[in-house]
Amino acid sequence: MDVAEARALFAQARVARLATVDAEGRPHLVPIAFALDGDEIVSAVDHKPKRTMRLRRLANIEANPRVSVLADHYEDDWSGLWWARADGTARIVEPGAEEHERAVSKLAARYPQYSERRPSDSVIVVSVSRWSGWRAAR
Amino acid sequence: MDVAEARALFAQARVARLATVDAEGRPHLVPIAFALDGDEIVSAVDHKPKRTMRLRRLANIEANPRVSVLADHYEDDWSGLWWARADGTARIVEPGAEEHERAVSKLAARYPQYSERRPSDSVIVVSVSRWSGWRAAR
Repeated sequence: MDVAEARALFAQARVARLATVDAEGRPHLVPIAFALDGDEIVSAVDHKPKRTMRLRRLANIEANPRVSVLADHYEDDWSGLWWARADGTARIVEPGAEEHERAVSKLAARYPQYSERRPSDSVIVVSVSRWSGWRAAR
Repeated sequence: MDVAEARALFAQARVARLATVDAEGRPHLVPIAFALDGDEIVSAVDHKPKRTMRLRRLANIEANPRVSVLADHYEDDWSGLWWARADGTARIVEPGAEEHERAVSKLAARYPQYSERRPSDSVIVVSVSRWSGWRAAR
């Protein structure tokens, strides 16, 4: 699968998984709602209830900005399988920055939940350096 | 969510995502079909077409056995969201070992594709040290 197809498949997914790595080399995985802005993936950090998770994700990115983000499709008929992956580096953008505003608008345009209650916490921006993917032969 | 619920949610998922980390601390993500055998997650490495991916996953585990495996459920109604995660260490089991046979049988019992064509390549066995999860409040 070429880069354009991988990116297009990724772009239409509603959920992806963000892998970060801590200072000791331990991976951490969470599902994310996201929006694509050119070759940047933006996602919002959730509010209070998941405070521990949130700190982990952000602490990992501070320790090691390298991340991998995966969208995939599963069905029991494996001829329908596909996945698309974005590898790159992440940074944390805090509320108040113009870039935060832009990321939140992208997210709100994709998810009504974010337009009803705009994310007011940190946003993660992943600069994608490599798109890859795979699709089963039908 | 308690450990038992996280484990039960994970167990019924049809697909999960495996995060490994290379020697330089770069995360790698792939979707996996899997079976749960007690507190071990087994998955098979696919055949020829994905050779590069396969080598990466296995090379990473050899360099750093720490992995994270995530199952999740997305729907546009966010009150239905959940995820379940298994953190642990992975090892590679080669064909011929009794443990390989057992893993393949577990996989074949879950996925008819594996029973029609039994995986004959390496198997990854993850020993889970921590189950965690989250479910939206309905």
